[in-house]
Amino acid sequence: MFLYTKNFDEQKAKAMEGLRQALEEGKVDEDIITLLEKINALENYFTTSSCSGRISVMEMPHFGDKVNSVWLGKWHREVTVEEVLEAIGRHEKGQLWFLVRSPILHVGARTLDDAVKLLNLAIGLGFKYSNIKSVSHKKLLVEIRSTERMDVPLGADGRLWVSEDYIERIVGIANDQLRRFKGKLKRLEEEAEKIENTHQLL
Amino acid sequence: MFLYTKNFDEQKAKAMEGLRQALEEGKVDEDIITLLEKINALENYFTTSSCSGRISVMEMPHFGDKVNSVWLGKWHREVTVEEVLEAIGRHEKGQLWFLVRSPILHVGARTLDDAVKLLNLAIGLGFKYSNIKSVSHKKLLVEIRSTERMDVPLGADGRLWVSEDYIERIVGIANDQLRRFKGKLKRLEEEAEKIENTHQLL
Repeated sequence: MFLYTKNFDEQKAKAMEGLRQALEEGKVDEDIITLLEKINALENYFTTSSCSGRISVMEMPHFGDKVNSVWLGKWHREVTVEEVLEAIGRHEKGQLWFLVRSPILHVGARTLDDAVKLLNLAIGLGFKYSNIKSVSHKKLLVEIRSTERMDVPLGADGRLWVSEDYIERIVGIANDQLRRFKGKLKRLEEEAEKIENTHQLL
Repeated sequence: MFLYTKNFDEQKAKAMEGLRQALEEGKVDEDIITLLEKINALENYFTTSSCSGRISVMEMPHFGDKVNSVWLGKWHREVTVEEVLEAIGRHEKGQLWFLVRSPILHVGARTLDDAVKLLNLAIGLGFKYSNIKSVSHKKLLVEIRSTERMDVPLGADGRLWVSEDYIERIVGIANDQLRRFKGKLKRLEEEAEKIENTHQLL
């Protein structure tokens, strides 16, 4: 393919330095570290950011205002109803939400061909919202994302709109979603190392 | 740019025939027709599918099983609490969800350069989940998507888990989100025609 990232190796070295630091500071989700290592061991890819997926309770002044949002609870694993209720108990003002977010990985690719190869692998493994986030000589970025998601309003300004029974229900659904996307991450981990042996024609 | 869609003009002619039919059968969301017309009037783009965004009440056997899902109510405009309650009243079995989905447009582009130009315009106008869905000589597809979304479990197997008060709250939030993404569609409609006069370097 014609389109490739200029200074790919420099960019990768920089990203790897950033990752090393993040790892030291414990800022990388533990259950995604092996996957990141496998991708970064490949010649034509490097990870730039990642989240292994999460369940959270969030307080925000109004919907979409992420800058002023506060996490009252955040988990990259299955949660118990008690943990969620405890987080909800810390709510004071603004809108209160219960959220599930799928894993998200950003991966730089050397060439457009490499980017498309990874994109197709990810989609095939169930990461159906995967896409190419930016395409230029400066950056060829693949976003790997799955469909699991919940956005449930729980209350506002210190008042809860739902019952404990309801919270138990949605925690159950959230844990189902989490197990599902963790399974996909596992499969991606298994398949990632094979990618440089596959052949892709645009 | 080097990468371009082979048979672009044929593909566009085919897509336009499909659109004409869909329009005749009333299958295109009314409030997005002007935008589609403006994009399709451009030399280097054509729309392949679209939804102007919606609020809905859906029944599904289990989460993610779209094939067996049934819409009990679906609106491409603001809804009233009464309309939503009426749809909920039709629920019988499976999981019951209240959903908001942002507009989504798929646009074929002649060259990769054209695709990136549209992608950047869309992101700049607030369609932050926009991306390039596929990249090949067969198809260069831009997906235009925004962040508004709600996924709220309401009940299961004929039983409701939430109160009418709660439904009133989430309908309010959903209508806020709908107004917001309709505003973005309006801006995209205004800006789309200028795109072929702008210059983009990869």
